[in-house]
Amino acid sequence: MSISSKPDPRTEAQSILLHWREAVPNDRFAHLVKDATRSFQRSLQMRLADHDVPFGHWTFLRVLWERDGLTQKQLSDEVGVMEPTTFAAVKAMESRGWVERRQLAENRKNVYVFLTEAGRVLKAKLVPLAEQVNRLAVAGSSAEEIATARRVLLAIITQLALDVSGETSLVDE
Amino acid sequence: MSISSKPDPRTEAQSILLHWREAVPNDRFAHLVKDATRSFQRSLQMRLADHDVPFGHWTFLRVLWERDGLTQKQLSDEVGVMEPTTFAAVKAMESRGWVERRQLAENRKNVYVFLTEAGRVLKAKLVPLAEQVNRLAVAGSSAEEIATARRVLLAIITQLALDVSGETSLVDE
Repeated sequence: MSISSKPDPRTEAQSILLHWREAVPNDRFAHLVKDATRSFQRSLQMRLADHDVPFGHWTFLRVLWERDGLTQKQLSDEVGVMEPTTFAAVKAMESRGWVERRQLAENRKNVYVFLTEAGRVLKAKLVPLAEQVNRLAVAGSSAEEIATARRVLLAIITQLALDVSGETSLVDE
Repeated sequence: MSISSKPDPRTEAQSILLHWREAVPNDRFAHLVKDATRSFQRSLQMRLADHDVPFGHWTFLRVLWERDGLTQKQLSDEVGVMEPTTFAAVKAMESRGWVERRQLAENRKNVYVFLTEAGRVLKAKLVPLAEQVNRLAVAGSSAEEIATARRVLLAIITQLALDVSGETSLVDE
């Protein structure tokens, strides 16, 4: 309890606020979006901890609830992490009885990750926590403002998807 | 070249767009903000790769350009990763001549990470890449929309900072 190897979430939240209110209020939009993502994750992480679920496991469960029976490679791509990270998380979730790894008759080379019944029912317990964080987060803004923010974020995703596809010339001097 | 262990950024960008345009357009705001963060990172990663800089190193350099002479623990907290990740990145950046680790006379227990001159001058080369991504990202939205989106994101950060501090009752039914 005394010395934690993780940063205190309250200190981290305060330093993010200080940054935007005082230090660098006109900092890049990318940075603001990243800090908002981190804020969502921190609030969810706090709630998941009450259910003894590491945030890292949540990121894999979210994908598996949509579609399981993925290889560890596919799972890594979906979550956006390297395979050793996925391997460690899958092992840990397997020992908790949430997933199992199976080979399929038609392709013995690959190992597929499936949810167990216990892993499947976790969804009904954990997704409401994310929904709660979401409601709390947007409670300070009007529906119209939120609709605008959604539109801007979607436009950003669209612009940057064109960018990585090389389908746009740079909107730059 | 043939088989990459990383997901194709174009495929990933397309699947994000598909999600928001067709599959789950009303998905949680948290998810949208996370996807936007990932989009920014992917576009920057592509440009950093042209300069042979891994995205992981960028995340540490950004912090060190603001303030160096941090311990690896402080650096881990700032970047939001575990210490072994920081240790590996610092070693790699040291071998490229961008940082050096030094003990200070007043406290021989700790090792502090300092930028070298080469690490310092990288800033002028790499920050413009992030600024370019930022301009490109917001080019599809009006200044007024962007101002609203900034206000909403800051309100979210504020709400969630109160949340983790336990300073707010839940805005929930």
